[in-house]
Amino acid sequence: MSVRAGIVVTGTEVLTGRVRDLNGPWLADRLLEFGVELAHITICGDRPADILAQLRFLAAEGVDLIVTSGGLGPTADDVTVATVAEFCGRELLLDPELEERIADILRRMIQRRTTSSTAVDFEAVLAANRKQAMVPVGAEILEPVGTAPGVVVPGTPTVVVLPGPPRELQPMWARAVATAAVQQATAGRTTYRQETIRMFGLPESGLAETLRIGEQSIAGFERMEITTCLRRGELEIVTRYEPDDVDVYAGLVGLLRDHHAREMFSTDGALIDDQVAALLSGRTIATAESCTAGMIAARLTDRAGSSAYVAGGVVSYSNEAKSDLLGVDAALIAEHGAVSEPVAEAMAAGALRRFGADTAIATTGIAGPGGGSAEKPVGTVCFSVALGDGTTTTRTLLLPGSRSDVRERSTTVAMHMLARALSGGDGD
Amino acid sequence: MSVRAGIVVTGTEVLTGRVRDLNGPWLADRLLEFGVELAHITICGDRPADILAQLRFLAAEGVDLIVTSGGLGPTADDVTVATVAEFCGRELLLDPELEERIADILRRMIQRRTTSSTAVDFEAVLAANRKQAMVPVGAEILEPVGTAPGVVVPGTPTVVVLPGPPRELQPMWARAVATAAVQQATAGRTTYRQETIRMFGLPESGLAETLRIGEQSIAGFERMEITTCLRRGELEIVTRYEPDDVDVYAGLVGLLRDHHAREMFSTDGALIDDQVAALLSGRTIATAESCTAGMIAARLTDRAGSSAYVAGGVVSYSNEAKSDLLGVDAALIAEHGAVSEPVAEAMAAGALRRFGADTAIATTGIAGPGGGSAEKPVGTVCFSVALGDGTTTTRTLLLPGSRSDVRERSTTVAMHMLARALSGGDGD
Repeated sequence: MSVRAGIVVTGTEVLTGRVRDLNGPWLADRLLEFGVELAHITICGDRPADILAQLRFLAAEGVDLIVTSGGLGPTADDVTVATVAEFCGRELLLDPELEERIADILRRMIQRRTTSSTAVDFEAVLAANRKQAMVPVGAEILEPVGTAPGVVVPGTPTVVVLPGPPRELQPMWARAVATAAVQQATAGRTTYRQETIRMFGLPESGLAETLRIGEQSIAGFERMEITTCLRRGELEIVTRYEPDDVDVYAGLVGLLRDHHAREMFSTDGALIDDQVAALLSGRTIATAESCTAGMIAARLTDRAGSSAYVAGGVVSYSNEAKSDLLGVDAALIAEHGAVSEPVAEAMAAGALRRFGADTAIATTGIAGPGGGSAEKPVGTVCFSVALGDGTTTTRTLLLPGSRSDVRERSTTVAMHMLARALSGGDGD
Repeated sequence: MSVRAGIVVTGTEVLTGRVRDLNGPWLADRLLEFGVELAHITICGDRPADILAQLRFLAAEGVDLIVTSGGLGPTADDVTVATVAEFCGRELLLDPELEERIADILRRMIQRRTTSSTAVDFEAVLAANRKQAMVPVGAEILEPVGTAPGVVVPGTPTVVVLPGPPRELQPMWARAVATAAVQQATAGRTTYRQETIRMFGLPESGLAETLRIGEQSIAGFERMEITTCLRRGELEIVTRYEPDDVDVYAGLVGLLRDHHAREMFSTDGALIDDQVAALLSGRTIATAESCTAGMIAARLTDRAGSSAYVAGGVVSYSNEAKSDLLGVDAALIAEHGAVSEPVAEAMAAGALRRFGADTAIATTGIAGPGGGSAEKPVGTVCFSVALGDGTTTTRTLLLPGSRSDVRERSTTVAMHMLARALSGGDGD
């Protein structure tokens, strides 16, 4: 019997999308690691009736643990502790020692700021913060990281009340897990393993077909929880299973490898960016970008330490730039058009030469919405990878979607072509 | 009596935080614009029992409209339409015409890909996609943008079922709003006006102070709903008000202009990207990027038609690239360091010259986490804008945050420096 949890995220600014919720996903990860199954995340504004409704919904769904985030501040719109107390049927009482500890924190904060701020009415601040020292009877207090304490209210379900700012919530979650109430509520939890496989260039329906084969051929297949997600041509396959089912998972990996060896580029969760970075160690790369216009260079330099292997690049949006900066023969452009494999190859060769690099990637394409023709429709993109040993891999793809889709997908394709070329594949 | 709505986001990858939910916040914005109050967002995995529980919870809370996102794909874990049909007590029937339209879409998709891909078992693909043509009796079909159709199921509440990918969901939401069922379910909504003002370089506390003045000095101020959001140094101020309060809003705009004329760059919601694009009309721009490494070029070319004014750029990550491709004197780098105003100016001048452009922007900085020093800490970035008439604006900033924060913030600063220089400002 597994242990289930729900998360209640409160705050009008989060509900209305003005502030992105970082706590739901972060807590989801922690619960998973902890061996607790997350069933629901609910988000509502700072209205007691809506918060109460969500707590009651989760209790009715039989969750063992509820974690709330937000609504612990000193202002009137912060109502979470009082609402949780009502939900649990516990009285709310002032804890004088906690009040004194909050007052100490405030005193230190105000002292630190007085150089740059106007005079502070300390009594008014204390009055506003007094409500933060109101605690449901029988709850365990989680000492504040900022000024807001959290609470753990034992029961069925047990409720953990945490503040909204992630830098306060995160350390306080660790304290909450250590409380007797949380340990008891989650006593029956299961530890799962979670593994990630990544594929590139396989449609979701192709994977679905292989998984149907797995259902028939792998004993215990149904005990694994497999979720798939398609993003920019990459398919992410996340599998959760109990430690005893390690052989069942090995069967799945074998099946996927048998059917999709070519598309499967990662079985350890590593991203294509990680793989390219590792493959570029000891090398020097230069980019020559037309339709992606800097996106490949930006992606390669996204990680710390990339200056060790990135020399630079040229964004050659105009034909003149292709000729002047990359040495592409103007006659070649006139003959084949700027979007053509010969021009892509000449761009990559030019980047190798101009930057003294041993690895180069070039893109030239029609991102749209204008500029397409019957022969070269919008989405046509030519790629070329050139290596210092003279190896060149060139291909043309027709990519779907909007201008921004074509540019982003092209950037991802470029990363995969680089990885294949650098690992000795045929780049196809 | 206001109209209330709930959003149900489905997908194990969203619940577990592996994929960030973009649909909840986007739909929240659209509902607000539409005059509907959002009460709850709920997120669950691809489990029919959990989805059903959330739908029933929202119905019990008395919402008039439920919008779901996700779970419309061809794989077995996509269960939203069947679950909504169960919730609404409607049978699920195959729509043969819809099935044919989906088959057409798939045929075109597969034809486009066959040049570069292996043979596809079209019948297997069709079988996997057949379930996407199952529709609850009496529902209106929302034609697919990808391969997954949506549905609108009339009733109390009315349920709008949309696919998960934002580029499919967003156009399909517009179609959903136009249906008779959604119009009827939301007949009692209030229409608000919503206006957006944008500022750059003003701290949130400075704005808060000005708004306090407004509370005292502008009659009817409290009837406006003002929300502010700080993002990458830009402050977005969104105000909702009833049409009768147009003069109250004019008072707010006047107050903000009186206090922050310098920082207020947009009163019509236009983004800095829109403004730079307009200012570049008839001009030619080139970029010379070190720490931003292509991000400015990528941002300038993000919009359709940018090839009319973007010549290209150089990503000069190494010192050699700065000298070889942009003609920056190696002695200048040796004397002042690569991250210095003289080098930024020489990069901009080099970009003007090499691309035959009349506008150039250069960045050179320390994005971190390594590479900082006491004199030039991580976050130090030098910017230079050079125009064809010889005007040059150069400045150095110390930007906070992580490597990615510094790079993104630098890109935004560059856009604002360009706008100010091109509109004849002092670029400060």
